[in-house]
Amino acid sequence: MPKSVSYGHLSRYLSKDFELKTDGSKYVDASEILKGGFSRLLDVIEAAHVIANNFSHFDQSVLLKGIHVFIFSPNDELQYGVDESYKLLIPANGNPVYAHLEAQTIYGALHGLQTFSQLCHFNFTTRAIEVHQVPWTIIDQPRFSYRGLLIDTSRHYQPLPMIKKVIDSMAYAKLNVLHWHIVDSQSFPLEIPSYPKLWDGAYSISERYTMADAAEIVSYAQQRGINVLAEIDVPGHAVSWGTGYPSLWPSKDCQEPLDVSNEFTFKVIDGILSDFSKIFKFRFIHLGGDEVDTSCWRKTPHTRNWLQKNGLNESEAYQYFVLRAQKIALSHGYEIINWEETFNNFGNKLSRKTVVHNWLGGGVAERVVAAGLRCIVSNQDKWYLHYLDTTWQEFYMNEPLTNIKNPIQQGLVIGGEVCMWGEYIDGSDIEQTIWPRAAAAAERLWTAYDNLAKDPRQVTGRLAHFRCLLNQRGVAAAPLAGPGRVAPAEPGSCYKQ
Amino acid sequence: MPKSVSYGHLSRYLSKDFELKTDGSKYVDASEILKGGFSRLLDVIEAAHVIANNFSHFDQSVLLKGIHVFIFSPNDELQYGVDESYKLLIPANGNPVYAHLEAQTIYGALHGLQTFSQLCHFNFTTRAIEVHQVPWTIIDQPRFSYRGLLIDTSRHYQPLPMIKKVIDSMAYAKLNVLHWHIVDSQSFPLEIPSYPKLWDGAYSISERYTMADAAEIVSYAQQRGINVLAEIDVPGHAVSWGTGYPSLWPSKDCQEPLDVSNEFTFKVIDGILSDFSKIFKFRFIHLGGDEVDTSCWRKTPHTRNWLQKNGLNESEAYQYFVLRAQKIALSHGYEIINWEETFNNFGNKLSRKTVVHNWLGGGVAERVVAAGLRCIVSNQDKWYLHYLDTTWQEFYMNEPLTNIKNPIQQGLVIGGEVCMWGEYIDGSDIEQTIWPRAAAAAERLWTAYDNLAKDPRQVTGRLAHFRCLLNQRGVAAAPLAGPGRVAPAEPGSCYKQ
Repeated sequence: MPKSVSYGHLSRYLSKDFELKTDGSKYVDASEILKGGFSRLLDVIEAAHVIANNFSHFDQSVLLKGIHVFIFSPNDELQYGVDESYKLLIPANGNPVYAHLEAQTIYGALHGLQTFSQLCHFNFTTRAIEVHQVPWTIIDQPRFSYRGLLIDTSRHYQPLPMIKKVIDSMAYAKLNVLHWHIVDSQSFPLEIPSYPKLWDGAYSISERYTMADAAEIVSYAQQRGINVLAEIDVPGHAVSWGTGYPSLWPSKDCQEPLDVSNEFTFKVIDGILSDFSKIFKFRFIHLGGDEVDTSCWRKTPHTRNWLQKNGLNESEAYQYFVLRAQKIALSHGYEIINWEETFNNFGNKLSRKTVVHNWLGGGVAERVVAAGLRCIVSNQDKWYLHYLDTTWQEFYMNEPLTNIKNPIQQGLVIGGEVCMWGEYIDGSDIEQTIWPRAAAAAERLWTAYDNLAKDPRQVTGRLAHFRCLLNQRGVAAAPLAGPGRVAPAEPGSCYKQ
Repeated sequence: MPKSVSYGHLSRYLSKDFELKTDGSKYVDASEILKGGFSRLLDVIEAAHVIANNFSHFDQSVLLKGIHVFIFSPNDELQYGVDESYKLLIPANGNPVYAHLEAQTIYGALHGLQTFSQLCHFNFTTRAIEVHQVPWTIIDQPRFSYRGLLIDTSRHYQPLPMIKKVIDSMAYAKLNVLHWHIVDSQSFPLEIPSYPKLWDGAYSISERYTMADAAEIVSYAQQRGINVLAEIDVPGHAVSWGTGYPSLWPSKDCQEPLDVSNEFTFKVIDGILSDFSKIFKFRFIHLGGDEVDTSCWRKTPHTRNWLQKNGLNESEAYQYFVLRAQKIALSHGYEIINWEETFNNFGNKLSRKTVVHNWLGGGVAERVVAAGLRCIVSNQDKWYLHYLDTTWQEFYMNEPLTNIKNPIQQGLVIGGEVCMWGEYIDGSDIEQTIWPRAAAAAERLWTAYDNLAKDPRQVTGRLAHFRCLLNQRGVAAAPLAGPGRVAPAEPGSCYKQ
């Protein structure tokens, strides 16, 4: 739901040679982001039905000749906090008639094109693309700057075309951060040039990404206005690192957490982040830090000796590890995102450039922002997609600012993220596990609080329509009826299931 | 598995400007079917990873410069029985080295390109596409001429992009008939220009196909070597016809089967088949004829009177309907496919141009071919995809020629078809319900009997590889472990699930 909308009662049709006009823009589109976005716009609105060849029976005055896009900033850097606002006008008259799209940045303009695509309908009588309810005036901007979706390529490898499909569908819902949980205990699929044996921890020789593949994902996402947040989850969740470099394990019987006593461990983290900084240009890096069971460090002789020598207990060693990894990230120019256990255990020691990533449950964000740190909300009881029992209504109603009244503290909640953990997810079921529930969260993150539905029943029709639109665009979004990823229960219309 | 294969132990790499050469072909590619097939070949082999830019370190002698395709027939008509054979040679040497593909027809050549694509692997060291085990000699042709997959757009509408994705994936498995069960009792999504109210029976205004959409599907399929078999399932399975034309129903309380007593019923069938004949150029039309409960004809006064006046009992009236529909189809130049109940009830009355479509169970094909008619095998206990309990092993082991020893009778089994009925299938779950099980049946239908595995365990590795290949191409094929459409049970490699 946009910030403000008004519309009329006329119909206009997209002309056969519907065109992109850009004169008057300060943006020159050197990377062809706008050109690509316009080309995809035509693809999605023309994909569902064959358009008539002959437009001669149309009165010229009812045809939209094109869309005139004004972008005020010449800069196409995609960074946290980039202006994503846009203004879309579809007038009824003109000579000829052009839709009019204004945005500060190319990324606001891309959102405007997405909105425009959703106003287009195939008319079965005229066999042309119709825009109902002209004239339109839409003024729009997101409520939160960070609107994320996590994918996990460690539990199951996701081929590049699958990741690209997820990115495509994110753009339809105006999500803007792909949180790429690249590696975990189960596998290490990514090439790290500085430490070339790390991807020996991949599941197989073919289930790997080269650095060029990762750069391709970043570039593909950027073309669609989506930043990629790369994660290495340390010191836990890292068993696979030791396949190539066994000295990262405290011992063969203690493969997790990474060896806190070994300088090599931090050299490797430094090498990874150095390699990352060449392709992952998002301001943030995710350093994990969750679910760290340090008992292994105590049980293994050489790490126990190191703890004693340094006068640290296990918990202090965990803190030492996280803070040292943070320093490495800062040295590469990143700000840091860490899972909430780091905050829960030693929040006052974290770098002030930390964003705390909530996941364990509700009520965390209010403590984080009260401590003056930034927060991303992903409470697992509401926004974990692999919990199939969580309904889209629960996804919709999960409010990131619950119990946060102070405007300054509200501003520290930079957004939220739905998480598609990969234990039971591969290329066969990722789309219908993500959609339509992620779209319910996407509205929560995009739409101004006052415009949000107070009762999810008011959202059903709109969300059903969006899920059918996803199907029409080739995305395997599941029915709304029932919890996550259900097959349709009986024959029927997409719009009613 | 191809008919015959031999290979060596060398490696060759696809050159950066890998090209299509066609000189010497009699086929001129006026419809750009070969050009399109070659372009898709490059797309699928380059989709998974980013190829290196710099090939200067390669010795020219290890590079494949392109593929030289020789097609002997200038004809690009796609019809039942078209020659689909091909011969693919990938030599180790040459100056420069070209792969060599020979086929009688463009459609054999398309199969050869599919096979070639499956020999291509991304090499993570050279960052180029490698063909292992050169030199290759593959001589190949299908065992059966009819290798089908049914989709059902009445129980759930499938948007055009979804149908196109299914067609793409069928081509990967060398299936060659899309059996489009267009309409059924639940909805009538297709435009019929002769009777323009028929699609009033669609689920909604947007869940419809124009005739141009249907023509687009036929053309898209033809470009991939796949015929489209259109079905109208009469006289049962047709309630939706009466939404626009209520006189097709015997009465409001008896909406099925179609009114046998009404001449208008047969005029409508004639109109539909007349419209069909303009776009569905496949030799066959499917007229359904299954699950006809005629009790309604007896209970409704005017149809009961008609039965009495014509001296027909219910069963004879069913026969009358089916045979009259057959005559209409024949008058439009079609041969006929009917579901097996028509054969089971009055097989000796059916047109000799009938192909009987088995579905109820095993043992039918042998009776059909003994009666001198042709048969397609789809026994529901093995080849119905919506039965999720049926494993891929059962799909694989279902032998169409069971108990048929006479070579002439064997020749009457023109092939088989796996059926993806749509009651519980929409855009969200169609791909993973079809794949990988349809691929197991596809090998049964393609591969010479002697080359088929006698034990499906010999197929597991190959099928797992194919399912991972489908994932790599963006197709949501499900894991092999377990029955149909399972989510992966735990983290792990695609190749082991």
